[in-house]
Amino acid sequence: MLDLAVQHLPVSPIRKMSDMIEKSGAKHRIITFGSGAPSLAPPREVTDFLCSELKRDAHATVSYGSTKGMPHVRELITETLKREEKASIDPEKEICLTEGGTEALFMTFRTLLKPGDQIILSDPTYLAYYPQLSFLGDGVTHLPAYVQDDFQIDVDRLNEMMTPKTKAVLLLSPDNPTGRLLEKNILKEIVGLCEDKCVWLITDDIYKDMLYEGKFYNSRVFGGHGNTITCCSFSKSASMPGFRLGYVYGPAKFIDRVAAIKSYISLCPSRPAQICVEKYLEKKAIVKKKYLAKTVVPTYRKRRDKMAECIERYLPNAEFSMPKGAFYFFPNMSRYLRRMDEEAFASKLLEEQQVVVIPGKYFGEQGRSHLRLTFVSEPEERIEEGFRRIARFIGENKL
Amino acid sequence: MLDLAVQHLPVSPIRKMSDMIEKSGAKHRIITFGSGAPSLAPPREVTDFLCSELKRDAHATVSYGSTKGMPHVRELITETLKREEKASIDPEKEICLTEGGTEALFMTFRTLLKPGDQIILSDPTYLAYYPQLSFLGDGVTHLPAYVQDDFQIDVDRLNEMMTPKTKAVLLLSPDNPTGRLLEKNILKEIVGLCEDKCVWLITDDIYKDMLYEGKFYNSRVFGGHGNTITCCSFSKSASMPGFRLGYVYGPAKFIDRVAAIKSYISLCPSRPAQICVEKYLEKKAIVKKKYLAKTVVPTYRKRRDKMAECIERYLPNAEFSMPKGAFYFFPNMSRYLRRMDEEAFASKLLEEQQVVVIPGKYFGEQGRSHLRLTFVSEPEERIEEGFRRIARFIGENKL
Repeated sequence: MLDLAVQHLPVSPIRKMSDMIEKSGAKHRIITFGSGAPSLAPPREVTDFLCSELKRDAHATVSYGSTKGMPHVRELITETLKREEKASIDPEKEICLTEGGTEALFMTFRTLLKPGDQIILSDPTYLAYYPQLSFLGDGVTHLPAYVQDDFQIDVDRLNEMMTPKTKAVLLLSPDNPTGRLLEKNILKEIVGLCEDKCVWLITDDIYKDMLYEGKFYNSRVFGGHGNTITCCSFSKSASMPGFRLGYVYGPAKFIDRVAAIKSYISLCPSRPAQICVEKYLEKKAIVKKKYLAKTVVPTYRKRRDKMAECIERYLPNAEFSMPKGAFYFFPNMSRYLRRMDEEAFASKLLEEQQVVVIPGKYFGEQGRSHLRLTFVSEPEERIEEGFRRIARFIGENKL
Repeated sequence: MLDLAVQHLPVSPIRKMSDMIEKSGAKHRIITFGSGAPSLAPPREVTDFLCSELKRDAHATVSYGSTKGMPHVRELITETLKREEKASIDPEKEICLTEGGTEALFMTFRTLLKPGDQIILSDPTYLAYYPQLSFLGDGVTHLPAYVQDDFQIDVDRLNEMMTPKTKAVLLLSPDNPTGRLLEKNILKEIVGLCEDKCVWLITDDIYKDMLYEGKFYNSRVFGGHGNTITCCSFSKSASMPGFRLGYVYGPAKFIDRVAAIKSYISLCPSRPAQICVEKYLEKKAIVKKKYLAKTVVPTYRKRRDKMAECIERYLPNAEFSMPKGAFYFFPNMSRYLRRMDEEAFASKLLEEQQVVVIPGKYFGEQGRSHLRLTFVSEPEERIEEGFRRIARFIGENKL
C-alpha cells in the first residue's frame, strides 16, 4: 500500500541544472547560458526600504496577510497597469498575488482546465508549461512557429486548430526561448478570435519590461476583458526571483476561485516581498522606471548585442532570430550536431568546458536541434569566453 | 465554454476574517482571538542578518536556488532534528523546503493520495486539512476525540477504522484547535500500527516548539522511518509567517516526487526566508533556543494562563481542556448558544463587540457548539477586555 499517487512527473532540465550547480559549489568556473536568472541586484531603494521596515516594525513586516495580497500593493499594481498598459483592473476583485509567476500559471491552469479540455500553445515555448499541463493528457495542442517568420503566430492556422474542446489559448510575449515579440496586428486578431470563439486567452507577460526593440501591448487594449487572464511576476523585472512574487489578473469570478485555491496551496503571498514591491511601484513607479531605463535594459541590450556578435563569429552556421525582448537566443544547431542530439551536446559541453546551455527539445517539438542560451546571466567578457569554449568544444569533438 | 474547472472550494473562515480585517483598517478596535498569528516579532538577530546580507550582496540574497532549498539550510534543519528530536534525516534526499506548512501539506496529500484512497484524521482538528483533501471525495474518515479524554486518540478505534483503502493517518500534535499533546505511549502505538498495516503516517509538527507542559516526541523515535512523513514550518516557531517558509521530510522516493511537483507549483522556496533560517539555526540553533526559552514560551504561557482564568470567570459553564501546547482554547459553548449556532454567535460577536473568534464546526463534526480562541495574538490586558466584551455580549443577548 506504500505507493505514491504521483509517479511520472519529469524534473525540469533547468531545475536539475540549478541543483547541480548549487551543490557543486563550482559556480565561479562555470559560465552559464542556462537558467533565465537576472544577474543584476534589485534596486537599492527596494532592499533598503525592506530593511527600514524590518527595523521599524519587524512583527508587522513578517506577519500573515490577505490571501490575494496586501490591498495597497494590489492597488499599486493595477494603477501601474492602467498608466503603462491602458488596462483597467479592479484591485479588489480582479487580481491575486502569487508565489512567483509559476504559481500564477499553476493556479490558472488548475482553475480553468480539466482533463478532456484542449489548450493551444505555440511551439517552441516555455518548457514548464508542459508538465504543468500534463494533467490534461493529450489536451495540449502545438501550434508550430518558425524562425523564418520570426516565430510570429499564424492566426489562420490557430483558427483551424480550434475545436469545440478548445478551452484556452496561451501566449507568451516576449517569448521564452525565442525572444519573439508578438506583432500588434497579430495580437489584435488573436484577441478577436478568442472572443468570437468564447475561449480563454491566457497571456504570460513576465518579460514585458525586458524589451530592446518594438512595443509591448497588453492584450486588453484590443478587447477580451471578460475572457482574458494574465500571469506576471516581479522576478525578472525587479531582479528579485528569490522573493517569489508574482500576480495573476482576470475576471472576478476567476480570481475568486484562484484565491480559494491559493488559500489551500500556500495561504498568502510573502509580505516582505510585497513590501519590496510597495517601494518599487510607489509614486507612479518611479523606482521601477528608473531602474529599467538606466540599468536593466541598457545592461541586457549590450549583452544581447554581444551574444549576437558571438553567435555570428563562433557559430556562423547556426540560424537564429534576433530577440526583441526577454533573455534568450535560440539558435538552430543542426549543422553542428552531427553524431549527437542537442541534449548530449549540452551535457558534454558542461562536462568538458563548464558552459551551461539548455537543450531545445524541452521547449517543444520545433525546438529539436536548437539550444537556448540566456544572455543576461554573464557580463560581455564572459559571454565571449563562453563562446570561445563552445568553439573549442566543437573543434575538439570534430563537430 | 467560458466556465471554470474549479467551482465548489469553500473559503476558509479564518482567511475570510483576515481579508475583512486587513480591508477594514480597523485593526486597533478589534480584539482578535481569531487566526493563529504570532504577535511577537521574530528574533532580532534573524532580521538583522537578512539586512546585512542584503547590504553585502543583494543579488545573491534574492536569487533563485534549488527546488528543495539551499543545501546549507537543509543541513541545519536536519542537524537540529537530530540533536533535538533524535530523528536521522538525509539533508540531500529526505527533506524539501516549502512555502509554509500549507504547501508542505498540500504537496504531501497530492503526492500520496488519489481519489478512492482513505485518510484518517482525528476530529476535531485543523480546518484546512478538509478542503486540501476534498479531491478525495468521501475518503476522509473522522476519528472522534473527546474533551473528557483530553482529546487523546483512541488507538483501538483507529485500528477498527482501518480498511484496505486506508492509505494514511494524519496526526497534529500539539493539536489545533484543542491544544492536545499526544501521550508518548499512544504515539508509540500509532507508529507501530501504521507500520504493521503498511499505512503512511503523516505528522504535522508545526506547534512542536510551542509547548507549555509535557514533552514532544518525534514519531521516528518509535520507528516508522520508511512510512512516516512530517510537515513543519517556521511561521509559528520563529514568528515569521509572512516569510512563508516550511519544510517536509520523509522517505527519499517521496521527497523526490514532492520536489518534482514543487518545481511546477512554485519553483523554489524564498531565499531571503531561508537566509533568516540560516541565522535562526546556526551554531546549534542558539538563536532559536534562546528565543523560545526567554521570549516565546514564557509570553504565551502567561497568556494561556490568563485566558484559562478568563474562561473560568466569564464563561463558567463552558467546558474546556487546558492546552499543553499550540495557541488555542476550544471551549464547548453549548450552554451559551441557545437560540443560535456557534457561527451566528461568532458573526454577531464581531459585529456588536469587535471580538474575533472562530466557529468550531469548521474543525470537524465534534467541533459543533465550540469556539476556537487563540491566546497568542493579544497581551493579557486585552485578553481580559475581550472576555469582558464576550460576557457583555452574552448578557445583552440573554444567552
